Amino acid sequence: MLPVIQPDPGPPPFERIAIVGFGLVGGSIALAVRQGWRGGLIIAIDRKDVLEAAMRVHAADVAGDDLVMASGADLIILAAPVRQNIALLGRLAEYVPGPALVTDVGSTKADMVEAAAGLPERLRFIGGHPLAGAAAGGFDAARPDLFRGRPWILTPDRPDDDGQWAVGDGPSAMGSLERLERFVTALGATPVTMGADEHDRLLAWLSHLPQLTASALMHVVGERAGAAGLALAGRGLRDTTRLASSPAGIWQDIAATNTEQLSAALGDLVDALERLRADLSEGSELKRIFESAARWKANLESAGFKDTG
Amino acid sequence: MLPVIQPDPGPPPFERIAIVGFGLVGGSIALAVRQGWRGGLIIAIDRKDVLEAAMRVHAADVAGDDLVMASGADLIILAAPVRQNIALLGRLAEYVPGPALVTDVGSTKADMVEAAAGLPERLRFIGGHPLAGAAAGGFDAARPDLFRGRPWILTPDRPDDDGQWAVGDGPSAMGSLERLERFVTALGATPVTMGADEHDRLLAWLSHLPQLTASALMHVVGERAGAAGLALAGRGLRDTTRLASSPAGIWQDIAATNTEQLSAALGDLVDALERLRADLSEGSELKRIFESAARWKANLESAGFKDTG
Repeated sequence: MLPVIQPDPGPPPFERIAIVGFGLVGGSIALAVRQGWRGGLIIAIDRKDVLEAAMRVHAADVAGDDLVMASGADLIILAAPVRQNIALLGRLAEYVPGPALVTDVGSTKADMVEAAAGLPERLRFIGGHPLAGAAAGGFDAARPDLFRGRPWILTPDRPDDDGQWAVGDGPSAMGSLERLERFVTALGATPVTMGADEHDRLLAWLSHLPQLTASALMHVVGERAGAAGLALAGRGLRDTTRLASSPAGIWQDIAATNTEQLSAALGDLVDALERLRADLSEGSELKRIFESAARWKANLESAGFKDTG
Repeated sequence: MLPVIQPDPGPPPFERIAIVGFGLVGGSIALAVRQGWRGGLIIAIDRKDVLEAAMRVHAADVAGDDLVMASGADLIILAAPVRQNIALLGRLAEYVPGPALVTDVGSTKADMVEAAAGLPERLRFIGGHPLAGAAAGGFDAARPDLFRGRPWILTPDRPDDDGQWAVGDGPSAMGSLERLERFVTALGATPVTMGADEHDRLLAWLSHLPQLTASALMHVVGERAGAAGLALAGRGLRDTTRLASSPAGIWQDIAATNTEQLSAALGDLVDALERLRADLSEGSELKRIFESAARWKANLESAGFKDTG
């Protein structure tokens, strides 16, 4: 790897960080915080069997399976599957008496932001979504550099609040969004701000549609070609279906919380496939779609993610 | 790379090999023959500008742009795009007076086998399809190990002919299929025999559907997410659309010569996508399709291509 010049993280933007859900993303946040600065206290909340592995490598300072452990945190990160995060959000107020910034790392944002409208004023919610992943899930796959060089989308529902939610005050106080941006920057990511609806629409195209397509393709090809046929497959099918190992559970959550945008995306793809299908002999639609695809593919490969900070 | 123990190629199964179309596959065949044994004469037939690069690296012994150069060959390999191969097949009899084995390397087989029924008896046709490819096409991308460890499907339209088509005779004479199997084995590939219709049905699933899906997906995602959106994309979209750079031309040929099977495959995929779309909130269809996909994906990754020879 090329050496990476790390920006000075400065003083930790949060002092007591509660992470609810200690899987790939939650665990990687903890490991990245550990690597980034020493001062912060990490509170891990998950099932006890999950936390054992995390505590063995000292990924957290304190750990437990009760939401009450988040009561003293100044940053609460919900890192469970989307619908579980929504349920957790509803219970947070009874456990957390003081002011705190609450964020999440889920793949859809609009339903979460809507649920956050019910929070008391002392709990300020800003949705988050690190665009980083790995082939495997769970804490065992967690690593401190998971977010390095990747975008981390933040979806504040209103303009920043000029420090009124800062724990502590004086000249060093800063707005919640600015603090959260500093936090994800310290984890190696680049914060990108957009609205929750814009996020869900964009991710339907960039992530949710490709996932559903890869799984649907692998399903029909497997059923029709069978094991003997698959033995002859080459790299083309393998790459196109790389995502097809993804577990159903988290994708049921994502699909259920982004039905409208994802339905529109699926509809557009089905239209394109039907246009191809109606014109296989002539091939003029194939030519049009392939030439457009090749242009966008060149765009995708050349652009990559540039630092937008 | 691990060392590969090469089987003794024995005497070359063909002495004068004409390759019509000197791109990625045709050029790689020539380079592999050169590497495999010394005796064979390679006759390259293509446009003059294509042949210049090939002759500079001595990939062929003689080269020209006229089909008459194939007249003395005992093996004629049609390595142009599918519909061009079909047209070439129709003209072969007027240029080739003696007995010869004719094969092709095209991605669809039924139309080709049908066209070959019009050949005179001295020209024996056996369809072929090496399941090997590269990101780029053209002679510049050709390499002698392109076929190593890959299947090479052969589609004889009738049982082997016990040597009656062998050039030369006596005890060393062998059937056309056996000679062609020895030839592709000497190139590093593993011959797999099946009917032309079976080939086209299987390849519609393993290759043609994934290609059309990748291009259709990249087209709709590019149009909707735009360049700014694509800049945030991760590896999932990149892998799923790796094939989307493929040129329209050769795929128009493939689609036009496999319309029935490909239409059925596209129909099945559209059905699966519509089932997902109708059930995004509930997610039971998603669960079913994702679980099936994950099983087939595990099968695809574990099986790989095993030597079936």
